[in-house]
Amino acid sequence: MLRPDEPGATRPALAPLAQSYASVRRASLALAAPLSAEDCCVQSMPDASPVKWHLAHTTWFFETFVLEPHEPGFAPFHPAFRVLFNSYYQGVGARHPRAERGLITRPGLQQVLDYRAQVDARMQALLAVAPDAKLQALVELGLQHEQQHQELLLTDIKHLLSCNPLAPAYAEVAPAESPPAPLRWLRLEAGLREIGHAGAGFAFDNELPRHGVYLNGCELATRPVSNAEYQAFVDAGGYAQAEHWLAEGWDWVQKLGREAPQYWQRAAQGGWAEFTLHGLQALQPAQPVVHISYYEADAYARWAGARLPTEAEWECAAPLLGAPGQAAPAQRLHPAAQAAPGEVWEWTQSSYAPYPGFAPAAGAVGEYNGKFMVNQYVLRGGSCASPPGHVRPSYRNFFPAGACWQFTGLRLARDL
Amino acid sequence: MLRPDEPGATRPALAPLAQSYASVRRASLALAAPLSAEDCCVQSMPDASPVKWHLAHTTWFFETFVLEPHEPGFAPFHPAFRVLFNSYYQGVGARHPRAERGLITRPGLQQVLDYRAQVDARMQALLAVAPDAKLQALVELGLQHEQQHQELLLTDIKHLLSCNPLAPAYAEVAPAESPPAPLRWLRLEAGLREIGHAGAGFAFDNELPRHGVYLNGCELATRPVSNAEYQAFVDAGGYAQAEHWLAEGWDWVQKLGREAPQYWQRAAQGGWAEFTLHGLQALQPAQPVVHISYYEADAYARWAGARLPTEAEWECAAPLLGAPGQAAPAQRLHPAAQAAPGEVWEWTQSSYAPYPGFAPAAGAVGEYNGKFMVNQYVLRGGSCASPPGHVRPSYRNFFPAGACWQFTGLRLARDL
Amino acid sequence: MLRPDEPGATRPALAPLAQSYASVRRASLALAAPLSAEDCCVQSMPDASPVKWHLAHTTWFFETFVLEPHEPGFAPFHPAFRVLFNSYYQGVGARHPRAERGLITRPGLQQVLDYRAQVDARMQALLAVAPDAKLQALVELGLQHEQQHQELLLTDIKHLLSCNPLAPAYAEVAPAESPPAPLRWLRLEAGLREIGHAGAGFAFDNELPRHGVYLNGCELATRPVSNAEYQAFVDAGGYAQAEHWLAEGWDWVQKLGREAPQYWQRAAQGGWAEFTLHGLQALQPAQPVVHISYYEADAYARWAGARLPTEAEWECAAPLLGAPGQAAPAQRLHPAAQAAPGEVWEWTQSSYAPYPGFAPAAGAVGEYNGKFMVNQYVLRGGSCASPPGHVRPSYRNFFPAGACWQFTGLRLARDL
Amino acid sequence: MLRPDEPGATRPALAPLAQSYASVRRASLALAAPLSAEDCCVQSMPDASPVKWHLAHTTWFFETFVLEPHEPGFAPFHPAFRVLFNSYYQGVGARHPRAERGLITRPGLQQVLDYRAQVDARMQALLAVAPDAKLQALVELGLQHEQQHQELLLTDIKHLLSCNPLAPAYAEVAPAESPPAPLRWLRLEAGLREIGHAGAGFAFDNELPRHGVYLNGCELATRPVSNAEYQAFVDAGGYAQAEHWLAEGWDWVQKLGREAPQYWQRAAQGGWAEFTLHGLQALQPAQPVVHISYYEADAYARWAGARLPTEAEWECAAPLLGAPGQAAPAQRLHPAAQAAPGEVWEWTQSSYAPYPGFAPAAGAVGEYNGKFMVNQYVLRGGSCASPPGHVRPSYRNFFPAGACWQFTGLRLARDL
Repeated sequence: MLRPDEPGATRPALAPLAQSYASVRRASLALAAPLSAEDCCVQSMPDASPVKWHLAHTTWFFETFVLEPHEPGFAPFHPAFRVLFNSYYQGVGARHPRAERGLITRPGLQQVLDYRAQVDARMQALLAVAPDAKLQALVELGLQHEQQHQELLLTDIKHLLSCNPLAPAYAEVAPAESPPAPLRWLRLEAGLREIGHAGAGFAFDNELPRHGVYLNGCELATRPVSNAEYQAFVDAGGYAQAEHWLAEGWDWVQKLGREAPQYWQRAAQGGWAEFTLHGLQALQPAQPVVHISYYEADAYARWAGARLPTEAEWECAAPLLGAPGQAAPAQRLHPAAQAAPGEVWEWTQSSYAPYPGFAPAAGAVGEYNGKFMVNQYVLRGGSCASPPGHVRPSYRNFFPAGACWQFTGLRLARDL
Repeated sequence: MLRPDEPGATRPALAPLAQSYASVRRASLALAAPLSAEDCCVQSMPDASPVKWHLAHTTWFFETFVLEPHEPGFAPFHPAFRVLFNSYYQGVGARHPRAERGLITRPGLQQVLDYRAQVDARMQALLAVAPDAKLQALVELGLQHEQQHQELLLTDIKHLLSCNPLAPAYAEVAPAESPPAPLRWLRLEAGLREIGHAGAGFAFDNELPRHGVYLNGCELATRPVSNAEYQAFVDAGGYAQAEHWLAEGWDWVQKLGREAPQYWQRAAQGGWAEFTLHGLQALQPAQPVVHISYYEADAYARWAGARLPTEAEWECAAPLLGAPGQAAPAQRLHPAAQAAPGEVWEWTQSSYAPYPGFAPAAGAVGEYNGKFMVNQYVLRGGSCASPPGHVRPSYRNFFPAGACWQFTGLRLARDL
Repeated sequence: MLRPDEPGATRPALAPLAQSYASVRRASLALAAPLSAEDCCVQSMPDASPVKWHLAHTTWFFETFVLEPHEPGFAPFHPAFRVLFNSYYQGVGARHPRAERGLITRPGLQQVLDYRAQVDARMQALLAVAPDAKLQALVELGLQHEQQHQELLLTDIKHLLSCNPLAPAYAEVAPAESPPAPLRWLRLEAGLREIGHAGAGFAFDNELPRHGVYLNGCELATRPVSNAEYQAFVDAGGYAQAEHWLAEGWDWVQKLGREAPQYWQRAAQGGWAEFTLHGLQALQPAQPVVHISYYEADAYARWAGARLPTEAEWECAAPLLGAPGQAAPAQRLHPAAQAAPGEVWEWTQSSYAPYPGFAPAAGAVGEYNGKFMVNQYVLRGGSCASPPGHVRPSYRNFFPAGACWQFTGLRLARDL
Repeated sequence: MLRPDEPGATRPALAPLAQSYASVRRASLALAAPLSAEDCCVQSMPDASPVKWHLAHTTWFFETFVLEPHEPGFAPFHPAFRVLFNSYYQGVGARHPRAERGLITRPGLQQVLDYRAQVDARMQALLAVAPDAKLQALVELGLQHEQQHQELLLTDIKHLLSCNPLAPAYAEVAPAESPPAPLRWLRLEAGLREIGHAGAGFAFDNELPRHGVYLNGCELATRPVSNAEYQAFVDAGGYAQAEHWLAEGWDWVQKLGREAPQYWQRAAQGGWAEFTLHGLQALQPAQPVVHISYYEADAYARWAGARLPTEAEWECAAPLLGAPGQAAPAQRLHPAAQAAPGEVWEWTQSSYAPYPGFAPAAGAVGEYNGKFMVNQYVLRGGSCASPPGHVRPSYRNFFPAGACWQFTGLRLARDL
């Protein structure tokens, strides 16, 4: 592991990209630090991946897309890793089946850490020789990719621990409860606007190109729906009343036997408890409701006489709403802090689709986003588990309507 | 069955709504006429319904939503039919499970025809006493609803017959092959437009309200993709090359082992044959490709260097394209004619979602459309199986991305 | 349909085998007589077959195994029927998938009746010319086969009608309730015995060869368990107590949510009702419990402090028990009479396995029995739906442990 | 871990039962020694369990069935373990779902080893005070139980490692190939015999009572079928010819796409390789074929013109066959040695059923065997993975017909 800040070190300063590289890679290791090799190995469901796999796959990304085409005399760390840690890139060749990632007990965690260390050293050597713009862009993509996996690492380990009847904690630091913020409505007038990434910073291809949209006018709530508000829906019998639900959502509720959000359970002393990265906790009323599916978000909004915003409405409102996705890093006590107000992915009613003029990159990296643009819904904002600085107002997260192991909540909208 | 035109009849002329009623109801019986009681009873898959069920359910709609609240001294034809022929209206009470519609051998077809005749007589009696606007609107909704089921009746019986290794024909009349139309591109400039139903005629709630949209500019093909064009994709190995497909589409192809559209099969003498309502036929190259899923439509478009249009683009282009959904009834030789050029439902890239300001009707009829607005894609146009006069440019048909037993094809679009 | 007894007919008397042929074939038609074409077409689950399929398949058996090798100038009634109505004979070639038998609306019932009539005429012509012993044996096998399908026809139509919420009746004749017989125990001393078919009459290959067995001594109940006795188990909470059940049986109960035998339902006025071929009836306490799985039979026996008999015990006791499988035809008021005392298939604890020295016939008919000898349990006795004269003490019926749509019950046994 | 043989130790000699206890418990740890914590944590399929779970569950058995009722002032090591490590004893209360055993990353392996050490110390304290016969019997049952899990530990880790594309080895010691033994036939005359356990040593309840059986006479092969013999069946196309297979076996072959035994794969250089506990190895022709299902064993026997023996035939022949289940421990180079001639579980055609007069023990331990007596087949003999001294000629192993992750093979039998 890189330890550039050690006292007595006299190493030359790293260039900015090399610094970013070191910092992002270190953050992944920090997230895995509280976990045992066993914790890191197991896969709790096909949608989730083992922590060890995240650590290896993000390394594979750099090895495959950066080192292989750019490093003179490239040789892979281990030939089998090309298949073992390929996620979904058809253009790279075969892939180990997604649902069997948890069966890979060997390589063990230590060998994967060795893999990371070797690739890191080779990457730093590559970056030490002034990289051209194209190479820089690839490295930047790899770092953004790794940050996405940092969030998945947390949501996946949370799901795994939630399956353990002992309800073990990932971290012991308990978050402080904030006082509830009043809910107000922000008016968005009808009119022609633009959405999509603009400016010089990094953006994924799915945020481009910036383009015109017409808003028909609406109001957005100034903060996400809270646990207390959502509990009123639960306690009013909302999960037993078909009229609030999309037909497919109602089937989902019936099939899974849901009576509340996935991580809620009735507390022995009455009321509700919630499984968190800190173990089982009393439900905190002022925090945003989290780990709900699109179906639940939609049903709640209908019950509340409102609707979900579109992604265009959300993006146009973002500068006025202030916080979402822009909370200062200092506000985060710990990468595993539970959702704080304004810190949750928000379901929109927009299906994930290409922007007008969208063009994926050439080659296998072009598979990054575009091929998932069907039967998924866009989420906007960012969560307590999103790495600081990773998200922005034009950022498009996306998941299927039934997914609820992410830090997903909602913000209400209503027509004028 | 009503036979108002019989020689010697001296009955008074029916009012326009009563005439429409008689005409639409008669059309359903005409569609079932070539079928045996056995053909009408069986359900070939959960997505499809038996013909007998269509005949009964459309009758149930009038009995439940029109007669029950409006007929003095209302008594149901058979109390059990309220449950047996309810499709999905939670507000009406229990429903027979959808996947078990084919197990209902009793009532038999004849009893269902008796049901239709009795409800028709009672409806005509009700309509003979000047109905108010609200009642007229309900009857109109019931007729539009029955027309939708007429199309489903044809697609469902086609699917059933396709499962029979004898490949029986629904009707013997073979359609005449038209000469191929040249494909041209129609330019749609960027700008602010309006879509949604306008004017006095009937529209479903999902076509409302009319509202502004901004188009970023594109070109649309002047006709749908033909069998010959689609066959080029098939013959080029398109079903074996992951790079053309959405990730979920590729899984779909692999899981089902698809190598061509659902009703295509390799002909003994080489080339392709297609199962049609007239039995197995040689593939007709100039006809629009039909019975393809969203995944196939999207893959073809990508392979062809184009994309699917959005529903807004489609609707804005409709007046310029001329035909779609507006072919004169005289052009149809038979309700079961196979797709003719310009006569196919066209997948759009738009997920089925509420228009800004959408509000479903109060009561159980409010379940008609709104609750299906998730994980479905909008189709525009109309097909050879759509009843004459039923569709219009603002009409929004919708199906899940994997559905291919409808008359579904595609039209290409491309960015400027 | 053959009607050789019609007044005025002067046809020559048929030989005994030809008479049997005519009689058995007529009986199948008589069983189908109360049913509509729709009733005959539908398949309610993969285990069951449509009545029309039974009528066709039994005809196919004669056409394929008798006419084809023996009729000069043989030509099939319809070439496609060879595949369409082959049940499971790999040696004959391809088969229509079992679960899709209900999708065959064409040929219709009338065409299948024509098929029967034509094959019957050709069979009678063949039998009119003194058939040799091998041909006679094949015809006899075909008749026994058809009788087995007669019972299946009744159990399959019962299952179909049970799926209809209207609970329609197959036949209106209600059976008379017999007074309950007292339960006594019959002692079987330890010792060497023989089981298996002996003598000149027909037997299936699975009843052969007759061979020695050693019984360790036991007692068998003099009659099957009655509804009243089984209800005591149900009412005592037997379906909610794991300790009575085989582990696999307990999983079965939990998965299906069973609280009583398949066709039982709680009566509106309290107590239990049972779906029968005469519609929904109050449970008749003195009748044998019927339509229970092996799991239920085993659990009841354990709860009652007893066990299931082995098939050897059952067969050795049969002559002493009198009735089972030997009730006089005159005792049957109607082929669809519900189970009467002594008239139910009885689960044994014996897995269906070959007798020592078992050898299946050469050719495709050798697939008749032997290839099913795994994961099935032997039932002995015979039921109200078994054709008169069809069963005998050495008869081995067999079904998987979870099957309960047959007329299956149990008789208790206990160790000395 | 107990280390009584350490130099310098002056501990008092343990009584024989205490010695057995120490020895068996030590053997489990020895089997786990080559594995990492990750290897020990993962569950590769619902039928298999994690090694860690085996280590904990066998400890739970002693804690629950021995310590809890016999230790004064009993307190559990951890209250949650009662549920977490209960396998299937309904009488003990709730159980963690079987398919989710691999999700328990905490307790980690080290905590489970601590659990073992603490329970071992308490068991030794209990055994140090002269235990009565009932307690001795329970401890003996617990040790036999642990030995059964030692074999499962090896087969389960073998399955897990086989899922890893790197084909890692459990142990590096490669077994020596023995020369092939000639196959002869041993004649068993017809006559009355006895089977079941007799004498003073330990036996499971399912081996009792000893009772009479009648054999109809047969011949048994003097050794199991070898890899070379089985390969002849594979190479002759046996997996593609329905006529050799039970109907259910044929469905199994088709559904799984099997072309050879589960762990066989075509070698790059031609011929066959086999995944073993030593990694991927060239198939050794003289070794018994292993890891085949009942279906495969039955199909091979039929193809070879023979059949499977019954368990009574097998047991009566055992004294004459010499080896099976009685190979001297010295013959085993390593507990993970692959199957050696005469060292494989042999499928019999006997369904697993209670012996006449069988009575399970009272209480929860009565669930040990009896409740699994349905839809399983008896295996006789013992394997290379069976602990030395564990098996005997009356020993009844049992698995469902489709199981093939055990060391299962077959011996041929034929009628006289």
